[in-house]
Amino acid sequence: MRRKPPTRAGLPIIAFLTDFGTRDHYVGAMRGVALGICPHATLVDITHEVAAQDVLGGALELAAAYKYFPQDTIFLCVVDPGVGSRRRALAAEAGGYRFVAPDNGLLTMVFREAAPSQVVELDNPQYARPVVSRTFEGRDRLAPAAAWLANGVELRALGTAVAKWEMLAVAEPTAGAGELRGIVVRIDRFGNLITNLDRRTFEVFAGDRRVDIDVGRHHLEHLVHTYSGVETGSLCALFGSSDHLEIAVNGGSAVERLAVSRGASVVVRLKPDAT
Amino acid sequence: MRRKPPTRAGLPIIAFLTDFGTRDHYVGAMRGVALGICPHATLVDITHEVAAQDVLGGALELAAAYKYFPQDTIFLCVVDPGVGSRRRALAAEAGGYRFVAPDNGLLTMVFREAAPSQVVELDNPQYARPVVSRTFEGRDRLAPAAAWLANGVELRALGTAVAKWEMLAVAEPTAGAGELRGIVVRIDRFGNLITNLDRRTFEVFAGDRRVDIDVGRHHLEHLVHTYSGVETGSLCALFGSSDHLEIAVNGGSAVERLAVSRGASVVVRLKPDAT
Amino acid sequence: MRRKPPTRAGLPIIAFLTDFGTRDHYVGAMRGVALGICPHATLVDITHEVAAQDVLGGALELAAAYKYFPQDTIFLCVVDPGVGSRRRALAAEAGGYRFVAPDNGLLTMVFREAAPSQVVELDNPQYARPVVSRTFEGRDRLAPAAAWLANGVELRALGTAVAKWEMLAVAEPTAGAGELRGIVVRIDRFGNLITNLDRRTFEVFAGDRRVDIDVGRHHLEHLVHTYSGVETGSLCALFGSSDHLEIAVNGGSAVERLAVSRGASVVVRLKPDAT
Repeated sequence: MRRKPPTRAGLPIIAFLTDFGTRDHYVGAMRGVALGICPHATLVDITHEVAAQDVLGGALELAAAYKYFPQDTIFLCVVDPGVGSRRRALAAEAGGYRFVAPDNGLLTMVFREAAPSQVVELDNPQYARPVVSRTFEGRDRLAPAAAWLANGVELRALGTAVAKWEMLAVAEPTAGAGELRGIVVRIDRFGNLITNLDRRTFEVFAGDRRVDIDVGRHHLEHLVHTYSGVETGSLCALFGSSDHLEIAVNGGSAVERLAVSRGASVVVRLKPDAT
Repeated sequence: MRRKPPTRAGLPIIAFLTDFGTRDHYVGAMRGVALGICPHATLVDITHEVAAQDVLGGALELAAAYKYFPQDTIFLCVVDPGVGSRRRALAAEAGGYRFVAPDNGLLTMVFREAAPSQVVELDNPQYARPVVSRTFEGRDRLAPAAAWLANGVELRALGTAVAKWEMLAVAEPTAGAGELRGIVVRIDRFGNLITNLDRRTFEVFAGDRRVDIDVGRHHLEHLVHTYSGVETGSLCALFGSSDHLEIAVNGGSAVERLAVSRGASVVVRLKPDAT
Repeated sequence: MRRKPPTRAGLPIIAFLTDFGTRDHYVGAMRGVALGICPHATLVDITHEVAAQDVLGGALELAAAYKYFPQDTIFLCVVDPGVGSRRRALAAEAGGYRFVAPDNGLLTMVFREAAPSQVVELDNPQYARPVVSRTFEGRDRLAPAAAWLANGVELRALGTAVAKWEMLAVAEPTAGAGELRGIVVRIDRFGNLITNLDRRTFEVFAGDRRVDIDVGRHHLEHLVHTYSGVETGSLCALFGSSDHLEIAVNGGSAVERLAVSRGASVVVRLKPDAT
């Protein structure tokens, strides 16, 4: 019999996602602030290497990761080109998780999957550091907010409820006239090209018919189930670990082979029926 | 009412700062050694990407970060070009924190801000690994010392009290004849140039008069409060998150724009009074 | 008297070693999965920067690190070019530790040092995620297995006992005719070249006689005890922190100086006796 995991009562997790990199002390300072407020929090990293100030990139990485964490995890997300401007900072509850982030669309992909049940602006100074730097609210406002949540403070205590927030305009797949069109949205460390075409959309479009796939100016003949479904060095298309269509090279790098960038077009076409 | 954070009794923090990078197993081995001695320690990273053997760079990152950690945090600091030579290894108490580091000036900036109340040489072999590698004292002497401190051992038990230690000669700002002169001391991942001109020194010099700023051969007209105080792509000067004068490009990289290095001169001049 | 460390009862460690890098969310997702199953585990990183799909590189880093961790540590190792193919996933007990890894030779160096007392294939679906991605078994099968071990599940419960597993053919030093021959196996962040010549093999060969060393087409005159045994900028050979012969430049980078790669030959010759 499968054992039941123990509950996480009393063991809050704060998961970090930033574009701060790991070379400077910035993330270290945030960790120090968080532990000063919630010493028993488990701090874990999703990534600190979102491209500098790439809000969409951060939104996509967050969306790919958050659902693998246990319920009640608190996500501390800082990709914040507008720091110090009048953009607000938010805390939100969605999908059984809590999120702390600037109000710039960083939570777009999460909110599409799980509509937020509560969103507040972080305007209660009791839960920020006494002086909030105009250039580093991550340390002075967002990290404290996440840590106070970890410490048991209610979301609504952190500030004023808000009913609107920024959402990024993110390309959606479009289907029609025998074509399903999408784009490359992420390129990972292995050089895999991850698209915005999810398996369900694909199956509604293609059923069990065979397809051709064009990525940029390159043509792929068919789908496989895993990298090793083609020979080493060969290009393939498959549904990757996030259940989105992905272009890869078995044992190599698709981005080097195809020289495409984020945003490149991906077109899926039904093969003519054999007659 | 703001809740009081729980005490950290029994939850010691060891914060790492090294130049070991994260590609090799070196930091992993130190973590293993530390957890073997103090299993309940919380291990956190400030950075492992101090430039290889750049003691001054490490000293500056440490100084920028340590004060954001809760009191009693133990800092395990290893940037150690002289490893295996006769340079000593130290543990020190300063500002309510403890520090373990080679005696090469890595604690210079911390000790300027908070004079150490106690410094010992790590010469008690009981608190080192049985065999100390001549090329990796971080693993065999410094990590164990930090972990034994975390485990409740008194600082003075780690070795012989010492009264002198290395301090780096670090450029201080100089003021005179209508000029305040400093240098660029850090360049961060966003390309911001952080100087050694702190806000207090600046205010003593300039009061509320307006200033011109020269960085290398480049001229800036005035100070702003945050990056978005200038248009996207524009150069600006501001007091950054560590309260030091910083040169930045809103939404871009000042180091790419200006092509200056650490050590570049920064000169602040009072604007002539309007007449 | 040296204090006895507290036991780790109830404080399991999971140490990660992967080639996933830290830019993507992949390691974050594995951490989330592990904490969902074993919330009280201490997660630590050895490295995530094994070169992409470099199984031998991963095997060597793991072997250099694991023995510095406390007994019972669980190592979660994922360098997995064959993911999704028919290669098996394993859990093993060796040397007082447990290891979870694909069956592709990643545990070769560990198993050479410590013969495994028990190896199972991870084929019990109770201890994997309900759906196992064909491209990310690290998240769906290996991370859960490690976390269930941390949670107290017995190794044998994870799957079927196996008696054979992949081992890499790794070059061994060869001695004869006044020569000891080895190769460069790792190159670290400081540019040090670490060879497969361990101190014991060297001493059996050379006793206390003096030696010449050739690395690629370069010649070194003798061994030192630590980097500072030669002048700054000079090349030297020494036994490094893992007790293997290492070629280094004091205060510099041997790999830049010598321009050799992993696999480069290293030949140690006895100096002729002085006559």
